[in-house]
Amino acid sequence: MDVLVNGVVCKDPMLAQASDFFFPGLDMPRNTNNRVGSNVTAVNVVQIPGLNTLGISMARIDFAPYGLNPPHTHPRGTEMIVVQEGTLLVGFVTSNLANGENRLISKVLNKGDVFVFPIGLIHFQFNVGQTNAVAIAALASQNPGVITIANAVFGSNLPISDDVLAKAFQLDKKVVDFLQAQFGPKN
Amino acid sequence: MDVLVNGVVCKDPMLAQASDFFFPGLDMPRNTNNRVGSNVTAVNVVQIPGLNTLGISMARIDFAPYGLNPPHTHPRGTEMIVVQEGTLLVGFVTSNLANGENRLISKVLNKGDVFVFPIGLIHFQFNVGQTNAVAIAALASQNPGVITIANAVFGSNLPISDDVLAKAFQLDKKVVDFLQAQFGPKN
Amino acid sequence: MDVLVNGVVCKDPMLAQASDFFFPGLDMPRNTNNRVGSNVTAVNVVQIPGLNTLGISMARIDFAPYGLNPPHTHPRGTEMIVVQEGTLLVGFVTSNLANGENRLISKVLNKGDVFVFPIGLIHFQFNVGQTNAVAIAALASQNPGVITIANAVFGSNLPISDDVLAKAFQLDKKVVDFLQAQFGPKN
Amino acid sequence: MDVLVNGVVCKDPMLAQASDFFFPGLDMPRNTNNRVGSNVTAVNVVQIPGLNTLGISMARIDFAPYGLNPPHTHPRGTEMIVVQEGTLLVGFVTSNLANGENRLISKVLNKGDVFVFPIGLIHFQFNVGQTNAVAIAALASQNPGVITIANAVFGSNLPISDDVLAKAFQLDKKVVDFLQAQFGPKN
Amino acid sequence: MDVLVNGVVCKDPMLAQASDFFFPGLDMPRNTNNRVGSNVTAVNVVQIPGLNTLGISMARIDFAPYGLNPPHTHPRGTEMIVVQEGTLLVGFVTSNLANGENRLISKVLNKGDVFVFPIGLIHFQFNVGQTNAVAIAALASQNPGVITIANAVFGSNLPISDDVLAKAFQLDKKVVDFLQAQFGPKN
Amino acid sequence: MDVLVNGVVCKDPMLAQASDFFFPGLDMPRNTNNRVGSNVTAVNVVQIPGLNTLGISMARIDFAPYGLNPPHTHPRGTEMIVVQEGTLLVGFVTSNLANGENRLISKVLNKGDVFVFPIGLIHFQFNVGQTNAVAIAALASQNPGVITIANAVFGSNLPISDDVLAKAFQLDKKVVDFLQAQFGPKN
Repeated sequence: MDVLVNGVVCKDPMLAQASDFFFPGLDMPRNTNNRVGSNVTAVNVVQIPGLNTLGISMARIDFAPYGLNPPHTHPRGTEMIVVQEGTLLVGFVTSNLANGENRLISKVLNKGDVFVFPIGLIHFQFNVGQTNAVAIAALASQNPGVITIANAVFGSNLPISDDVLAKAFQLDKKVVDFLQAQFGPKN
Repeated sequence: MDVLVNGVVCKDPMLAQASDFFFPGLDMPRNTNNRVGSNVTAVNVVQIPGLNTLGISMARIDFAPYGLNPPHTHPRGTEMIVVQEGTLLVGFVTSNLANGENRLISKVLNKGDVFVFPIGLIHFQFNVGQTNAVAIAALASQNPGVITIANAVFGSNLPISDDVLAKAFQLDKKVVDFLQAQFGPKN
Repeated sequence: MDVLVNGVVCKDPMLAQASDFFFPGLDMPRNTNNRVGSNVTAVNVVQIPGLNTLGISMARIDFAPYGLNPPHTHPRGTEMIVVQEGTLLVGFVTSNLANGENRLISKVLNKGDVFVFPIGLIHFQFNVGQTNAVAIAALASQNPGVITIANAVFGSNLPISDDVLAKAFQLDKKVVDFLQAQFGPKN
Repeated sequence: MDVLVNGVVCKDPMLAQASDFFFPGLDMPRNTNNRVGSNVTAVNVVQIPGLNTLGISMARIDFAPYGLNPPHTHPRGTEMIVVQEGTLLVGFVTSNLANGENRLISKVLNKGDVFVFPIGLIHFQFNVGQTNAVAIAALASQNPGVITIANAVFGSNLPISDDVLAKAFQLDKKVVDFLQAQFGPKN
Repeated sequence: MDVLVNGVVCKDPMLAQASDFFFPGLDMPRNTNNRVGSNVTAVNVVQIPGLNTLGISMARIDFAPYGLNPPHTHPRGTEMIVVQEGTLLVGFVTSNLANGENRLISKVLNKGDVFVFPIGLIHFQFNVGQTNAVAIAALASQNPGVITIANAVFGSNLPISDDVLAKAFQLDKKVVDFLQAQFGPKN
Repeated sequence: MDVLVNGVVCKDPMLAQASDFFFPGLDMPRNTNNRVGSNVTAVNVVQIPGLNTLGISMARIDFAPYGLNPPHTHPRGTEMIVVQEGTLLVGFVTSNLANGENRLISKVLNKGDVFVFPIGLIHFQFNVGQTNAVAIAALASQNPGVITIANAVFGSNLPISDDVLAKAFQLDKKVVDFLQAQFGPKN
């Protein structure tokens, strides 16, 4: 009988099969016809049950021209990418430093370039070229999680109070309401 | 001779003193006369060197009336608070769920109430009362880090490209520029 | 369906509620009318199921005048306290050092003072004032455990052989028997 | 050049030698002519520098007839023993259980018997035979630490206040003073 | 009711018994009448359920004269042995070093000698004496695993392609086939 | 001043630069003109110092037609690959199972296929096509290490005794000597 470890099935090694460690088709371009012009195909413990307890996962990221993988964090693991096609402007922002700054560490990457986004830090990848771009990502968790900043802050269900958001972002409540309308659960 | 562990001094136990494990004055109200009306006094391995390797720290959070500890994350540890005075609206937002939502888990806390903000998730505390409020926080890291979302996204040094931010937040570049002016390094 | 992680329920994030991360009433004084004159109110994964996997918990410690939180250890986590009221003599004893000593690291704490008790070390808190005292504790485990030395050594069920205890503590067996009568399971 | 990891030398693998992973003479009986009639020979990272980062150590424990390895804890690792010679009464006491008990888990071990003492719990080994006894121990840390309860509680330097000890152990201060004289730093 | 942790039963401490932490008979010589002339008696979480979560196990290794515990790895933990009887040639090989070498760290051990085999490295123990030999091993995992190199490479079920093995070991396929016949699942 | 963590430089975040998180040129084919017809380009903490403490690395693996990445283990981390070009026969062998078997988990992978090689297990990748093949690997350690089985067993410096190898692999010593000549340090 299968047991659960981390809430996920852990198969008897007598019964494990190659298909438990396999996922196909990461070479296929994904549809980037959406608001931000990007699409992340995750290959983690949900897709490959054999990753359970192993602390790693991968992803393919497709970008339309000027497509953006918007500012987000992975709460449970560092990300490392290699560019397969295209030209990406990438960056991460440090946590609050002793001098009060948040430093942006940023670079334009071309095909074959590798870059690291340390665990928990806000980062983005932006296709600055006129052609599609593709990156392959490695993530240091079987289930790294993702928090898209705009969606979590302005689109949560239920919404965060606009008193909180107006003060936090020094915005007029109308702008907050506009942002909440953009990112809210019905969008 | 002292050695470094985690890049921080690790004292010979023959020489350790009570002062290496001590920090005074967490009962003193802090100045909340700033833009958000709150002030966090951290008591971590920087203030108490004896915390090195021990995986915990504390903080005092002061709130003016309607003061806000704005949306932020701790990349290296869960936070847990107990309210000492006042009434706080608190909440955290889940990471992106399978159905595409980011759920807000939120509650109004009164004196003596305890609440948990899981590691890496965006959270806030807002004083909804007309008097000062105070919370004591425990954090599951000797050096949990903090990323204030508005500052990291709109105030980084150097700034994130306004192309990125305009697309990510679906904002006009003028609004992005306004936000960057509010949170930029010179502010 | 809920799954167990660490033997404790781990809720689907689609179903988690604020009440899973909440515990009220830590401002209420507890009854210290007992032999040692102290009372520990734990707020850990038993009280707050949402703490599961998060590595932290809190407690409130009440002391009558001259009340004592007697020598004990937490086998799974460091403790850090802040004094809310009163004056406490606190201390911990190092593990056996290379020179054969066990050093006492001790301090008198007043309101607002913070002190650290490293994982696994024997420590105590003693109200040296004529009024009640209160401390708020943070502990670096969702389930830190506690071993009260006198109870574990002299009050275990079944009792440790008095040959062992007499030799270990260099005591006459009559004194051992007296101690076992004091701390034994029926007391 | 050697670097320090965990405050201990970490040798370049190009330069490591068999002697860095070796310790001789664990077959030799040790002198048990002392107050408790036992002697622990530790083989940890202090004796074998190559154990650094590897999470394990061993020890030899010699017992005179009726010799005792008195109640103690290892704050950083579980212990597991195999009896080489003689007959030992061994036991450990659980941490405080939900019903207020501390259960003693105890057994008489003969040659070849294996027993486990979980991390952080108070335990002892007592030679109940008329001949010498020997055990080989494995410990789940390169530096497990040891806290001998009687010494840490009654023999610390400086001493714990006798107000604390008298109340904690429900003893007359004269008995506390006697115990402190037995275990104090000068003894 | 018992719960599973790591896929293994985790007993309620109210119900734990000494037998959950006990294994007898590690003093009894084992049968070494096999191809390699050695026999490993593991004492891990399978034999002692109370080892669950505790990160340690032990083993007894018997060697006939010129018996060999052949090259193998423990993927989940460092091993440390003490020789009980006889004379063993032991060694481990480093992982691939920067200069392309794999260094052999090797030593002849006599009774009472202790040696360390770091996690994941290929190692062996060979009885170079004319009498039986015995070692007691400590392993830094409740379930360290073992991979016998010859069996895993040449005896897997199904077999690794002889194209792979011939090229990897620079062997004629006939020699590969001979080796696979020796170690194959039917042997 | 820079400090060392894990024996590797840990830069002050005030001074970190994009180049500390960057490595170029992973799109460039590598020279596979060697005995096994493959070439691994590692991108770990040696190439990218900013990976220190982050628990991940990547690699590019080039294969000539019928090129082989021969059986090896990574002692410190799971590997996950995605095929960029060509057709690979890949597999790993389980550790010794309860029934004495070592199971081969194997699959032919085409472009875009992903496969997992769990930590510490012996695995290989073999180009079964007539064209070059390329894979991108993610590894769950900043410094996963690699042990090439044939080199570690038959090519160590100094050599493992041919008594040991002959018995372990059930080979004539002449075959062992031939293998040692093939893989020995001078080759």
